[in-house]
Amino acid sequence: MDAASRTRASRGEALLERAAALARHSDSPDHYTRTYLTPAHAAAARQIAEWMREAGMAVRVDAVGSVIGRYEPARPGATTLLLGSHFDSVRNGGRYDGVLGILVPIACVAKLHARAERLPFAIEVAAFADEEGARFQTSFLASRALAGRLDPAVLERRDGDGIALAQAMRAAGLDPERIGEARVDARTLAAYVEVHIEQGPVLLGEGRSLGVVTTIAGGTRHALRVRGESGHAGTVPMRLRHDALAAAAEMVLAVEKRCGAGGSLVGTVGILRVKDGSGNVIPGEVELTVDIRAGDDATREAAEAEVFGACEAIAKRRGVGLERTRNHHVRAVPCAPWLQDRLAKAIEESGADAAPARRLPSGAGHDAMVLAEVTDVGMLFVRCGAGGVSHNPAETVAAQDAGAAVEVILAFLRSFEPREATSR
Amino acid sequence: MDAASRTRASRGEALLERAAALARHSDSPDHYTRTYLTPAHAAAARQIAEWMREAGMAVRVDAVGSVIGRYEPARPGATTLLLGSHFDSVRNGGRYDGVLGILVPIACVAKLHARAERLPFAIEVAAFADEEGARFQTSFLASRALAGRLDPAVLERRDGDGIALAQAMRAAGLDPERIGEARVDARTLAAYVEVHIEQGPVLLGEGRSLGVVTTIAGGTRHALRVRGESGHAGTVPMRLRHDALAAAAEMVLAVEKRCGAGGSLVGTVGILRVKDGSGNVIPGEVELTVDIRAGDDATREAAEAEVFGACEAIAKRRGVGLERTRNHHVRAVPCAPWLQDRLAKAIEESGADAAPARRLPSGAGHDAMVLAEVTDVGMLFVRCGAGGVSHNPAETVAAQDAGAAVEVILAFLRSFEPREATSR
Repeated sequence: MDAASRTRASRGEALLERAAALARHSDSPDHYTRTYLTPAHAAAARQIAEWMREAGMAVRVDAVGSVIGRYEPARPGATTLLLGSHFDSVRNGGRYDGVLGILVPIACVAKLHARAERLPFAIEVAAFADEEGARFQTSFLASRALAGRLDPAVLERRDGDGIALAQAMRAAGLDPERIGEARVDARTLAAYVEVHIEQGPVLLGEGRSLGVVTTIAGGTRHALRVRGESGHAGTVPMRLRHDALAAAAEMVLAVEKRCGAGGSLVGTVGILRVKDGSGNVIPGEVELTVDIRAGDDATREAAEAEVFGACEAIAKRRGVGLERTRNHHVRAVPCAPWLQDRLAKAIEESGADAAPARRLPSGAGHDAMVLAEVTDVGMLFVRCGAGGVSHNPAETVAAQDAGAAVEVILAFLRSFEPREATSR
Repeated sequence: MDAASRTRASRGEALLERAAALARHSDSPDHYTRTYLTPAHAAAARQIAEWMREAGMAVRVDAVGSVIGRYEPARPGATTLLLGSHFDSVRNGGRYDGVLGILVPIACVAKLHARAERLPFAIEVAAFADEEGARFQTSFLASRALAGRLDPAVLERRDGDGIALAQAMRAAGLDPERIGEARVDARTLAAYVEVHIEQGPVLLGEGRSLGVVTTIAGGTRHALRVRGESGHAGTVPMRLRHDALAAAAEMVLAVEKRCGAGGSLVGTVGILRVKDGSGNVIPGEVELTVDIRAGDDATREAAEAEVFGACEAIAKRRGVGLERTRNHHVRAVPCAPWLQDRLAKAIEESGADAAPARRLPSGAGHDAMVLAEVTDVGMLFVRCGAGGVSHNPAETVAAQDAGAAVEVILAFLRSFEPREATSR
């Protein structure tokens, strides 16, 4: 291991220790789950605020409970570069998802602070209070509030115990009437940059520590219901069958084939249920989901049209009924090319990976999708260990990769020059 | 409607009324379910015995509760032609399944008795007490007992309430120690003939009332477990996936394709379960069943070898694991050609259907499979209405078809000449 690698690994170790410490603030004693406005969530917020203050930042808690640290610029009145991610988790999740995007910029600011280094822009690190939304079935709640895009109707959502979100906010010392105050003035923002674990196997498979996100994929999820004719598995000749499962199997393969055409396009049938399935009964009805995502909406929409056209043709040829309902839809968000280029340059100059830096789309959604509505966004992916597993306790990040992320973001900050009028 | 059709319909109406009356002896007030040794089962047995006596038969109840009516031959010492089927049902079943094969021969004997017509052989009508085995998970219990093929170990089986079969027999006035006494002397049997609803759509689709069964299909059922790699539906590129459901979908289609080669071969995937299925998760594990049946074992075994070979190849190509377990296996039973010919001749002479009579395999199992171990067997299928639905309250038989069955079996009886030494 060379000197640069040793430095990265040792920086990374410290960061992984913080991730481990933060994961101990969990709603469950058995595994890591941290949902919005629980005691563990409040404890994690206090810990994050403490680390921010140690790094020389002034800390505020916004109207929805996000913790925001500010490191002042060299000159007052400069714009603000916002970095951040979320500190809530899915149930039984991984300790780096979200948290990495808070700990890396805190570590960077700590370095600047240690050398009393001020930059020509303010740095704010946002630890978003709720992104996964596991407790109230919300999504991107905190970044939406910060971007001024939160629908107050979410305040009426209830958790599994029947507690309303507004009620939980009051119990946590927050005022649901004031969620509008979380909004930042977009004109003050130079950009938003999010560091995140990749949550997939691409960097791992290619032996790279880091990647620059090109776009955050848009996606749709449809529910399909195939209605055939059930019957006795022994007595109905094959040519007289209208087997709902055989039809659904062809649809599964149609999704896989069309979405395997390359690029950022992916398609998944994650749920397939045979109604009243029995070993000696021809399936009469099958439900399945079709999840299609791509880095650009035109690619995804073209794939959807072909996939569902193929499904209709399969249903028609087999004499089965097909119903389809769209349950979810989000448009793709491109990362700003100028931010991609600066992040790539920082990776290339760090020597952490062979040049040129790997650029790749994000298949998962991130707070950056919401911030993109008000400013330019960039994202840095960190290699995910353990086969690329995430949303799972097996999620891992190597110390050296975490250290490389700190090194790259620090270099990015030192060379960052705010562009004019990037706000929307 | 011509005179013959009117006669058939009116004979059939009487028979359908008996089926409706018998279905009122049900374990449930809501639907027709009649399982072994329940009060409804005993009441049905009493009703059947009464109809047998009205038809001029001497009635005995054997050691397992089957009701057997005997119509004496013209001369003592003649062999016995056995006809019959079962009077237990599946849960929420159809009223003709089994019962038709009891009511048709009773109606035929009633005709002979009304004219004091004796034949050169005895006729026995067996109403088998348990074939579906819904209560104790037995199969062909009563016909096995009559054929001397019942494993006494079944006496230890328990129903859903924990009641042992032996205990239920005692409560119903039967002695489980004496089940061996149900065995008949195979040397006295000329043949066994079973009338049964087709339970499939073949005769319905071809506009035929009746069919002659060529073979009763053998079959196997296997459980397959496909192990791939689960992952985030958005972040794992298609080329890096090992999707257990996509692999299983190919297997479903491999079963359908190979078993659709024609003839009596059928193949069905009736159960397919995605473990921990979620719309945004690539399936990591899938369980499915593969049921393959054919009129002859060589055809079935060749298909199984190819289907499972194809499944192995699919698993290998996709890098997923595949485990397979055989849960069920029964060999095919041919119906005796000479009995097929006589039943066909009776159909052709009746004019109920256009000649030649339709011959077709039975995909479902019947008591005849067990009797085939001790004597030659023949089966007459009666058209199943409502799309061929059976094991379901929607099961129907047209009055005219039931009447045609009575007419054909009566003609068959009148022309039947026992062959020498058909016992095994």
